[in-house]
Amino acid sequence: MNTKAKGTNAERELVHMFWKANFACFRAAGSGSTKYPCPDLIVGNNIRKLAIEVKISGKEYQHLTKKEIDELKQFSTMFGAEPWIAVKFDEWFFLNPEDINETELNYSITGEIAQRKGLSFNDLINF
Amino acid sequence: MNTKAKGTNAERELVHMFWKANFACFRAAGSGSTKYPCPDLIVGNNIRKLAIEVKISGKEYQHLTKKEIDELKQFSTMFGAEPWIAVKFDEWFFLNPEDINETELNYSITGEIAQRKGLSFNDLINF
Repeated sequence: MNTKAKGTNAERELVHMFWKANFACFRAAGSGSTKYPCPDLIVGNNIRKLAIEVKISGKEYQHLTKKEIDELKQFSTMFGAEPWIAVKFDEWFFLNPEDINETELNYSITGEIAQRKGLSFNDLINF
Repeated sequence: MNTKAKGTNAERELVHMFWKANFACFRAAGSGSTKYPCPDLIVGNNIRKLAIEVKISGKEYQHLTKKEIDELKQFSTMFGAEPWIAVKFDEWFFLNPEDINETELNYSITGEIAQRKGLSFNDLINF
């Protein structure tokens, strides 16, 4: 399976998880190919709205560019949503972009960092 | 241009209009092909969230199915968004699904009904 198909499958996995947890959720069309900032997923219920960038490409670490993080923050501010980065190692972790230190980590998230700084899916939906 | 491409172009036109009006907006991936209810567009700012079903296929009238309207309402309730139906005749009109009378109109919206019951784009964003 190529990287793009893997990414789409990972996003679909999260879509199912959110619906099962009573959050409406869908994938954005052309995320990464429009001129506007756009997250991979939008999630919501009557109380909360989440904009999520999904990263599953690496095995040892997930690499994020400054542009991806900036656009996630920009979209979230404008739309009125919490910005989250979803990374999958053995399980899913959800990180707040503010918790990722650019200079320290160069936006490369290891499994250890994800566990230390991230929330599990259950923690996220009960946050 | 086929109907699907026309629909995509119409959705993109609205995406541009909303960003220009300082609303974040994007198109859903696979709207109509997932097992979950999903609008064509999601729009938001810090105050409002809109879920929009876009209809541009007909010249004389825009036809909506009961399933489309039910799913739009279902998604909007769950996500926490205002449900809107966007139809384009000479210009765009935005209708509240509650304002469309199934028995009277059989969910077929004429230009006359759109003008009488719908909001213009400017009315919608200042609603």
